Amino acid sequence: MTQCTFCPIAAGEVDADLVALRTKHVFVVPALRQHPANHGHALILPTEHIRNLADAAPVVRNEVFGVAARLTAAILELYNADGSIVFQNNVAPDDPLFHLHVHVVPRFIGDDFVMTRAAVAEVPRQVRLQQSANLWRTMAASV
Amino acid sequence: MTQCTFCPIAAGEVDADLVALRTKHVFVVPALRQHPANHGHALILPTEHIRNLADAAPVVRNEVFGVAARLTAAILELYNADGSIVFQNNVAPDDPLFHLHVHVVPRFIGDDFVMTRAAVAEVPRQVRLQQSANLWRTMAASV
Repeated sequence: MTQCTFCPIAAGEVDADLVALRTKHVFVVPALRQHPANHGHALILPTEHIRNLADAAPVVRNEVFGVAARLTAAILELYNADGSIVFQNNVAPDDPLFHLHVHVVPRFIGDDFVMTRAAVAEVPRQVRLQQSANLWRTMAASV
Repeated sequence: MTQCTFCPIAAGEVDADLVALRTKHVFVVPALRQHPANHGHALILPTEHIRNLADAAPVVRNEVFGVAARLTAAILELYNADGSIVFQNNVAPDDPLFHLHVHVVPRFIGDDFVMTRAAVAEVPRQVRLQQSANLWRTMAASV
């Protein structure tokens, strides 16, 4: 799975400083691309390379969405968001490198969010590091 | 909660024939509005009136996404879909009638799916009844 984008992060080989939270089966990172109107877009991923939601063991799936639920609460506080959207794509069965990830995107009244606009602008690493640190602080406090 | 759209369905007072599946804490119905290019759009809801994902007890949340995972597998088979998207909106805190629901939408190569297009066309009741029956058959078989 060396070509998977997320497995090296899962293994702590790259971007360890961007990981906002690790639990037994799951980790959280700020999304590389975030729409400016939805700043704070983050991803929850299983550490294990699992492709689709239906392939995840219940213990992993439960942890993914448990952390997602915590993230929806954390971003309300962190970004003064009006709400959030949680989404997850299960891709075509012939895409073997895909690594399951759940998006949590803060919503703001008037942000005119549409799915295809959600991941437009690449966010500077320094900003993502700050997001990660803020998430860690907010989520660790809510344990 | 008499003004909630979903509580009467949860209670079995209306649209009992549209419910594709009931588990201890959760039920499944075809979405009222489905984009023609994403025919088969369904909703998973907790029976209890819970507003946001962060408000759901772990046992309820786990069941919601456990059924969502089963749905993603069922619709691949039922609609010959290429994939699916799972999404869930957590609305502004001042919207008291909102009842938590998770969307599962079949994806097809070239469907040009965007979030705001997902819920355009109201689907005739007869079609939703057929979807419900098909889902029931497919999901019951996978238990």
